Amino acid sequence: MVYPFATRVQSITSSAVRDLLRIIQSRDVISFAGGLPDEGLFPVQELELAYQKVFLSGGKSLQYGPTEGDSELRLLISERLKEKGIAASHENILVTTGSQQAIDLVAKVFLSPGDTVLVEDPAYLAALQAFNIYEANIIAVQSDADGMIPEDLEEKIVTHRPKFIYVIPTFSNPQGKVWSKKRREALLNLAVKHNVLIVEDDPYSDLRFTDEAPIPLAAIDTLGKHVLYTSTFSKTVAPGVRIGWLTGPTEVIRMSALAKQSSDLHTSTIDQRAMCYFLQDFPMQQHLYRLREQYKQRLDVMQAYLKKSDPNLFQWVEPKGGMFLWVSINREIDTADLLKVAVEEGVAFVPGAPFFASQPQTNTLRLNYTHASPEVIEMGMCRLMAALDKVLASRVHD
Amino acid sequence: MVYPFATRVQSITSSAVRDLLRIIQSRDVISFAGGLPDEGLFPVQELELAYQKVFLSGGKSLQYGPTEGDSELRLLISERLKEKGIAASHENILVTTGSQQAIDLVAKVFLSPGDTVLVEDPAYLAALQAFNIYEANIIAVQSDADGMIPEDLEEKIVTHRPKFIYVIPTFSNPQGKVWSKKRREALLNLAVKHNVLIVEDDPYSDLRFTDEAPIPLAAIDTLGKHVLYTSTFSKTVAPGVRIGWLTGPTEVIRMSALAKQSSDLHTSTIDQRAMCYFLQDFPMQQHLYRLREQYKQRLDVMQAYLKKSDPNLFQWVEPKGGMFLWVSINREIDTADLLKVAVEEGVAFVPGAPFFASQPQTNTLRLNYTHASPEVIEMGMCRLMAALDKVLASRVHD
Repeated sequence: MVYPFATRVQSITSSAVRDLLRIIQSRDVISFAGGLPDEGLFPVQELELAYQKVFLSGGKSLQYGPTEGDSELRLLISERLKEKGIAASHENILVTTGSQQAIDLVAKVFLSPGDTVLVEDPAYLAALQAFNIYEANIIAVQSDADGMIPEDLEEKIVTHRPKFIYVIPTFSNPQGKVWSKKRREALLNLAVKHNVLIVEDDPYSDLRFTDEAPIPLAAIDTLGKHVLYTSTFSKTVAPGVRIGWLTGPTEVIRMSALAKQSSDLHTSTIDQRAMCYFLQDFPMQQHLYRLREQYKQRLDVMQAYLKKSDPNLFQWVEPKGGMFLWVSINREIDTADLLKVAVEEGVAFVPGAPFFASQPQTNTLRLNYTHASPEVIEMGMCRLMAALDKVLASRVHD
Repeated sequence: MVYPFATRVQSITSSAVRDLLRIIQSRDVISFAGGLPDEGLFPVQELELAYQKVFLSGGKSLQYGPTEGDSELRLLISERLKEKGIAASHENILVTTGSQQAIDLVAKVFLSPGDTVLVEDPAYLAALQAFNIYEANIIAVQSDADGMIPEDLEEKIVTHRPKFIYVIPTFSNPQGKVWSKKRREALLNLAVKHNVLIVEDDPYSDLRFTDEAPIPLAAIDTLGKHVLYTSTFSKTVAPGVRIGWLTGPTEVIRMSALAKQSSDLHTSTIDQRAMCYFLQDFPMQQHLYRLREQYKQRLDVMQAYLKKSDPNLFQWVEPKGGMFLWVSINREIDTADLLKVAVEEGVAFVPGAPFFASQPQTNTLRLNYTHASPEVIEMGMCRLMAALDKVLASRVHD
């Protein structure tokens, strides 16, 4: 039987890269591919205690719950947001099954086939997929190290009348880039001027290596009308609990909640209640300090390997936080080919091409430095260099 | 700012009934409205123990996991399905965030705007909403107490070429109806003859009050090509864990997994691991026996109230399982009006109209008998009768 799939999914067949990366999960390969935090740094004991507390209140926490989320958890999230300068009432917070669901819901409530979304280039792969599945017209805005170029952004807003502009302004995925304050303000000013929504995806800002935190767009948007903000506990606590949130204008949150109702009714009440107990007792600042220290050390190990190689071979901007190092190789090389050799050598990464909404730069790759220990990172980088040597040497012989 | 929502969500504004039901949650109202199991019957201690075990393995269970679901859980689900006569390999099982997500994913991968879905009439409200959000053309098939009428079904298949036929053949929501074996076979034969998919939603079959279990459509479909089957632990274990599943043809499950990836990456790994430990040790059959006994007793209390009233006032078919009693009032009455008076009297239910895909029968209502205790059910039915008396009396005086 031929299954009559909807047009929206006919373009989302699994990629060769994804299939390759799935295969290596079962093999002895050091992976810099996934966006995984280190499970060795998860607050396992504290979470265990929090889950124990859930069951003390009997069956109530195991019952169906409101689509919007546990009211106490929404309050706790709203307090955390206030510390970041974001004035979100708990009633304007929608608890989601990870921030990936927040992205999907925003796409679901805004995107009709052919509607435009403006994105950075490169941009977060799974967001591009979520927009693609709603048959959006994805347009890349020219960017430099400080963020989107305002002139190009305005031109594209006027030309394409986008439904929204999707950005990760703080330690982006895949580039690890942080937008300057000036560019943040320019983006918001243009959004206000042209009445366009911004979707600010902010999963990484707590993993900063600098003293000062960059100001979220949602905190600059004092009108509270132009920014939808999403974040998650996946990078700071643990991804397995699948708790993220979406906040923004009341009308949009209400509509997103209606869409969530038919998507999954609500997020696990057990996980939500556990997260409440966890947040009440947990010394989060201390924990974040430890994560930052550990992840910065790993980044340094990774960068040291790049620095000691041929100075003209690699190009990268040192990330000031987050989980990714984005590297360009100054040679004519397709990193999808490099990946095949790398996997043979026992190391994996994600080639850069799929992250691009416009013409892909095939000489780029994304390296995750938060999952492996410093020792394993060293070993993995050694294997990666060996793979690159092999590929470049074979080119010479071609 | 006017938010430019997609056409798909412009019809899903919250209903007056839903708003009313939300308000009463905070008041002293006995609710027969929700589809809630009794939290007093949840296996709290056993779940607590299962969650404890999750943390023994350290951070691993708190990490990102595969979109398809925990491999051990998929095996356990596949074993449970075998007991029901459904030969589903664990590789063809997709773990979902409740079976509501399975319904949403099926709609997401199959429905382009204007595509037809055939449904029973009345049908499960949140499934209708999920199909509506993908702008489906929902067509009701004529049904009687045994299921869809094959002649009308075939005519509508030929006329509308539906993407799928959505049914709850065992203890349906809202009617508590069970399809006869003959009608199940007729449905499957027509699906095979005309190459149409069936989506079998089966959340209630374990809550049966009869000795024999009705055979699932997925068990009759020995070719394994025409039935997508979804179920959940929400009614038998606890809804708060949000674990459901979808099984069916490999190609469809693979596509649904790709769609799930951009919807929420995966379902909580903590809840999935806990459910594995839970299922390994839990005497499920004994637990189901207790649930059936308890819920049947409550249904009897509810029916007794209807039976002792004017024999011409109410009409209903006694459910053989599930969670709902579907009642028609033999008077010219709109149960949406009755609800307002009932809430004043301190009892709530869901009016029947929103469940209809065709012309609604406004004299119908759905009563849930699984959430409240027998004593509370008696009190609630007493209030409901008082409300009905008031409404009918006011008619006489009009």
